[in-house]
Amino acid sequence: MRATTIHAPYDMRVEDVPDPSVQQPTDAVVRVLRACICGSDLWAYRGQAERQPGQRIGHEFLGVVEQTGSEVTGVGTGDLVVAPFMWSDGVCDYCREGLTTSCEHGGFWGSPGHDGGQGEAVRVPHADGTLVKLPKDAVGDDRLLAALLTLSDVLGTGHHAALGAGVRPGATVAVVGDGAVGLCAVLAAKRLGAERIITLGRHQARTDIARRFGATDIVPERGDAAVEAVRELTRGQGAHSVIEAVGTEQSMHTAVHLTRDGGAIGFVGVPHGSQTGLDLGVMFNRNIALRGGVAPVRAYIPELLPDVLDGTIDPSPVFDMTVDLEGVPDGYKAMDERVALKVLVTN
Amino acid sequence: MRATTIHAPYDMRVEDVPDPSVQQPTDAVVRVLRACICGSDLWAYRGQAERQPGQRIGHEFLGVVEQTGSEVTGVGTGDLVVAPFMWSDGVCDYCREGLTTSCEHGGFWGSPGHDGGQGEAVRVPHADGTLVKLPKDAVGDDRLLAALLTLSDVLGTGHHAALGAGVRPGATVAVVGDGAVGLCAVLAAKRLGAERIITLGRHQARTDIARRFGATDIVPERGDAAVEAVRELTRGQGAHSVIEAVGTEQSMHTAVHLTRDGGAIGFVGVPHGSQTGLDLGVMFNRNIALRGGVAPVRAYIPELLPDVLDGTIDPSPVFDMTVDLEGVPDGYKAMDERVALKVLVTN
Repeated sequence: MRATTIHAPYDMRVEDVPDPSVQQPTDAVVRVLRACICGSDLWAYRGQAERQPGQRIGHEFLGVVEQTGSEVTGVGTGDLVVAPFMWSDGVCDYCREGLTTSCEHGGFWGSPGHDGGQGEAVRVPHADGTLVKLPKDAVGDDRLLAALLTLSDVLGTGHHAALGAGVRPGATVAVVGDGAVGLCAVLAAKRLGAERIITLGRHQARTDIARRFGATDIVPERGDAAVEAVRELTRGQGAHSVIEAVGTEQSMHTAVHLTRDGGAIGFVGVPHGSQTGLDLGVMFNRNIALRGGVAPVRAYIPELLPDVLDGTIDPSPVFDMTVDLEGVPDGYKAMDERVALKVLVTN
Repeated sequence: MRATTIHAPYDMRVEDVPDPSVQQPTDAVVRVLRACICGSDLWAYRGQAERQPGQRIGHEFLGVVEQTGSEVTGVGTGDLVVAPFMWSDGVCDYCREGLTTSCEHGGFWGSPGHDGGQGEAVRVPHADGTLVKLPKDAVGDDRLLAALLTLSDVLGTGHHAALGAGVRPGATVAVVGDGAVGLCAVLAAKRLGAERIITLGRHQARTDIARRFGATDIVPERGDAAVEAVRELTRGQGAHSVIEAVGTEQSMHTAVHLTRDGGAIGFVGVPHGSQTGLDLGVMFNRNIALRGGVAPVRAYIPELLPDVLDGTIDPSPVFDMTVDLEGVPDGYKAMDERVALKVLVTN
């Protein structure tokens, strides 16, 4: 089959690789229908996260089950399924508690020896724990398929950020980060009942999506000026719930100072940099909490799926460019250059 | 009257100072019956926190109301009252939400122009918001008075740490810090239903109190060895709830690594050092939350008081040395040299 591989920074290829097959009785093979490129894939693309030459890549996909191992009972051949960005067994302590990202048998798509999502097909370990069935009639509805694909990462990650930030009905929320996760966090915050959602951003295409997703205010300033602007919008107090969806020291620093006393930061930006950006003295004096991390999106799919299916929320606008599998390298380039927000891959 | 003053590091004096009097209609004057010395007072004593020469000190006291301003309605002359370690107006946004430490009109005992608790009497701003009435028959019961005095800081701070750490019935808790706050956190965790409470400590007098307060396991190791020991006690997983009651980089680092995936650190140790000690990458990968800060103990008194009065919890053993007001400098010396855990001051 054809699949995307990474050979060196900025060297993405689509190549012939061995066809996947069931290796363990708990495996399934999924023929990929839709995949996409994640902001976190760019860390590998840019050489900021190490990869072995020729390693597969891509961790968001949905498709049709083609083959199942003898112990798989939850999904069957022909089922339309979505995969979260990590596999998980569904039965360990952590999975039963909903923290599927800490699964004792979990792993990452594209790790050495494993298929990535940006390919024609994927061998899925622990298929019963990992895959979630979708209604088959979604096939043929391009908008709905795109919306459903966000369940594999960005929508669930935005939801995780909103939960970490303690978003409640009536809350004032500030979102740091105008990427697909930050935008999905706006959608998630709105869904959880936030009354006011302030998005930090200055790219009109993105802030337009933020408004469509529920943002009530856009703050184009950055750093201290952004803090000042958010305080002006909130009677000097700051936001109850702040979502940090970037992962840099500067963005975390901004997030701390945007937060109202007693509030919380939901952080889902993969941390980068040698410093945390956290001002612990400020957090202490003002009782600011920090919650979040790698989102257990598998556990969130059952809650979010019905709202995506019935159109209560529509995250599909985060995709603003579509390529086929052979076009994946162009997709990386577009995202790296911020020409595209998020690239959909159709197989 | 006589009151404790600090003139320079290690230079504590008990001196004649002006008698307090009602200055604002919302003030009360409280004649101090019991006060104490806090671990955080030692930061001033050691010169690690700056003070103006001659500044008052002490932020934990209970006593009898001697005088009230014209607008005070909640307490009256002759009432036995306890004061939390900050005053608060009780009516602002933050106070109504229970975050009395962020009160818009709040302040610290002993700040310039204000009396400290380690003196004969204290002018109490915002008396209605600040003071909590106690049963008068507690006077004469030395043990009970000592127990009630902990409501002013260490018991409420331990409770705040336990809440921040998300202690729930059945939880496994680890406590970093064997000072009075750490020990009160053990008591608070036990009260909240923790099943297993692991205290890090090696001073027998303190670990004996920890056991009396509910600790099920004592880990004398420190740093990585302590992490290893706690993991061995918890099937390799770590503790659901970790209480950080020290405030150093090393203790915070230890706290992060003691925490089970998906767990939380309740931090109440005043942060010291230029670094946070937080490994944000570990917190991200394992979804470890950080919650806490300066404890809004005023808001906790109504919940904790009945349990202290009926003996459900007895925090009085945290006091292991008693001095009169003239002996306060000796009390500082004893705590600084770790001869005493916490010093009670009887007036």
